[in-house]
Amino acid sequence: MTLLTSWVESANSADTDFPLNNLPYGVFSTNSLEPRCGVAIGDQVLDMQALEENGLIALDDEPVFDVPYWNDVMELGPKAWETLRSRLMELLSSDASDQAAVAPHLVPLSDARLHMPMVVSEYTDFYAGRHHATNVGTIFRGAENALPPNWLHIPIGYNGRASTVVVSGTDIHRPNGQLKSPDAEKPSFGPCKRLDIELEMGAVVGGSNEMGRPVTVAEADEMIFGYVLLNDWSARDIQAWEYQPLGPFQAKAFATSISPWIVTRAALEPFRTSTPEREKDLLPYLQEPGPMLYDIDLAVLIEPEGGEQEVIARTNYNQMYFSAAQQLTHHASSGCAMCAGDLLGSGTISGPEKSERGSLLELTWSGKEPITLQNGATRSFIEDGDTMILTGHAQGEGYRIGFGACAGKILPAVEYP
Amino acid sequence: MTLLTSWVESANSADTDFPLNNLPYGVFSTNSLEPRCGVAIGDQVLDMQALEENGLIALDDEPVFDVPYWNDVMELGPKAWETLRSRLMELLSSDASDQAAVAPHLVPLSDARLHMPMVVSEYTDFYAGRHHATNVGTIFRGAENALPPNWLHIPIGYNGRASTVVVSGTDIHRPNGQLKSPDAEKPSFGPCKRLDIELEMGAVVGGSNEMGRPVTVAEADEMIFGYVLLNDWSARDIQAWEYQPLGPFQAKAFATSISPWIVTRAALEPFRTSTPEREKDLLPYLQEPGPMLYDIDLAVLIEPEGGEQEVIARTNYNQMYFSAAQQLTHHASSGCAMCAGDLLGSGTISGPEKSERGSLLELTWSGKEPITLQNGATRSFIEDGDTMILTGHAQGEGYRIGFGACAGKILPAVEYP
Repeated sequence: MTLLTSWVESANSADTDFPLNNLPYGVFSTNSLEPRCGVAIGDQVLDMQALEENGLIALDDEPVFDVPYWNDVMELGPKAWETLRSRLMELLSSDASDQAAVAPHLVPLSDARLHMPMVVSEYTDFYAGRHHATNVGTIFRGAENALPPNWLHIPIGYNGRASTVVVSGTDIHRPNGQLKSPDAEKPSFGPCKRLDIELEMGAVVGGSNEMGRPVTVAEADEMIFGYVLLNDWSARDIQAWEYQPLGPFQAKAFATSISPWIVTRAALEPFRTSTPEREKDLLPYLQEPGPMLYDIDLAVLIEPEGGEQEVIARTNYNQMYFSAAQQLTHHASSGCAMCAGDLLGSGTISGPEKSERGSLLELTWSGKEPITLQNGATRSFIEDGDTMILTGHAQGEGYRIGFGACAGKILPAVEYP
Repeated sequence: MTLLTSWVESANSADTDFPLNNLPYGVFSTNSLEPRCGVAIGDQVLDMQALEENGLIALDDEPVFDVPYWNDVMELGPKAWETLRSRLMELLSSDASDQAAVAPHLVPLSDARLHMPMVVSEYTDFYAGRHHATNVGTIFRGAENALPPNWLHIPIGYNGRASTVVVSGTDIHRPNGQLKSPDAEKPSFGPCKRLDIELEMGAVVGGSNEMGRPVTVAEADEMIFGYVLLNDWSARDIQAWEYQPLGPFQAKAFATSISPWIVTRAALEPFRTSTPEREKDLLPYLQEPGPMLYDIDLAVLIEPEGGEQEVIARTNYNQMYFSAAQQLTHHASSGCAMCAGDLLGSGTISGPEKSERGSLLELTWSGKEPITLQNGATRSFIEDGDTMILTGHAQGEGYRIGFGACAGKILPAVEYP
């Protein structure tokens, strides 16, 4: 696959995140437009509500772009998703006949504010990065017990909190919580001291299954509408004290950030890659009929208050031990009903090298090996005023499928009532 | 408080679950009426949509009873909840002036099908029963390590799955999942063999807090719209293999049943009681300004296929170590946004005696001491065809505040695709 050219000139650069090959889905507003669905193309965003109102696109008998989220489109199913993508290609390709009709509905991205692209029905976070699980297990339980016995068999996951999934650019207050160091006699309550990121991909579920009816891995892959970058903000000290026996709760509940554009499965198709060779055979229900991971370059950046952005880690989504399709299959395996708008976090993505670790917990080895920034400052964990940024793209020949940034700035903890 | 009398004669019995003192909120349909909000009174249900359409009740400028769920009423806030209750009292009390106008909007409960009373925004399950936590801890970790070190300080909880919260009467398929006995070399996949109930109360959150803004225990109490009975169906064998390190997932995801009527905080007001004396002082943010538990008698019944119902356990909600208000405060303590329609499970409610245990895991001591039913059959865990029923009521002088039953029948596991 090479670059597909568009009459929107800025979409034809090898550097843009949003060439015609991509066409990711978001929600935007401007000073004069209320929040609405949009599609990114080069340095522009295409107003889907206007397109539908003007009869340039029609996916259903009823309007689906009269609401500021993509859930209604998801519910139309994979055939409609294909129809939509084909029609957008047709409208935006360099040999389009409708340029004059479409052009008035482009808005410069620089004028747009970006909002959550969907209503998150429920949010589930997985733990499918082998290097991450090994690093964290080694830090907390020692090298011999690093990987839990179930880890190679089950895509381990837990239910997260959907109400605090926010779009990139949303500021986040440092959370308060119960803290207890191992040698303290009793817990105290106050601001988290070990605030961290987790570099993840989020799979947006677009299809659904009836309660009681599981899905195969092939069906699960078909149910995925697209992918976003996801930062699973984590309060390591709150987590350490609370997580036994029922798992992470308030340590993760205060915020999860996602990138504003849902990159479709179709756009990522050329970048499919397989999960690794299995050390232990997977149970049949989890076996993949084909490659279901993607080759996506990822980076973590930090921007201290008043300072410059710098990269502190680079890794790739192809490092995961389980794909989103396998995770979704496992999620529904008990009969759990999955719904359009469900968001599945991949788990923290770390590579084998130290520079490829997707959390500060790993990068600084639980704070014991602080990293030094370009301005000379050091970081064990996130400080107030720091902006943490995730970026990602799949690299094609002469083009890239970009995700846009997933950024969030940490504000001081609120005073407790 | 004594019985308040109504012109609906069946509401004046000491045995009815639904006297005028109660007025719980549900959703019903009949052969001729689409699902709509209703209020139970004696053996009747009052059609709120009809009442609103006929101008007999007006809570807001816009209709709130044109939808088949109570979330819109919740979002009006505590003042509107009081207004609604007062108006219903006025319309239904024995000295009401509007009887003739209201009577046509009563439907016999025997003609009504009951539906979910609300859209569940998110579901969180807690673990606040001390006897339960001690029993389970003893079974899994031995008597010395029964209660985790954090348990007396934190209302331990985890996020559950909202998409599979179903109303009483919904059949449930036995879940499939990964199973591995401690001596097996590798896991297998198939129907759960250790299927269980958990007797809980559910608190329905009606208010909300902005992300980043915690709430006090007093505010949390005001945010609670009402309570239901809740059965947190649990697959003990799936749970045992999957739950480390991130908590229960598919073991709980397949179904959670609730009773169909939301019993309001106002109806339960006379039955407030305190959480127990604290062995260890609670951190200030969790301290209660007044009694926030309730004296509610609870029972677990089993009805084998073709057999009779029989009680297998009795206990009381007053056994809990943390109230729903404390749980809600803890839930929001990190800055987690809580929303109208959120459902908080109390945790399994067990009393100190063997006959007071709220799960089969405890009643049969992990299957080692099966219980014998009246028909001579024994049960370690639930068998296909068994209907499990929870009941509960607060006992006033000459009246009771009943919840209606929370029942579910277990169907065989589905064949895997």
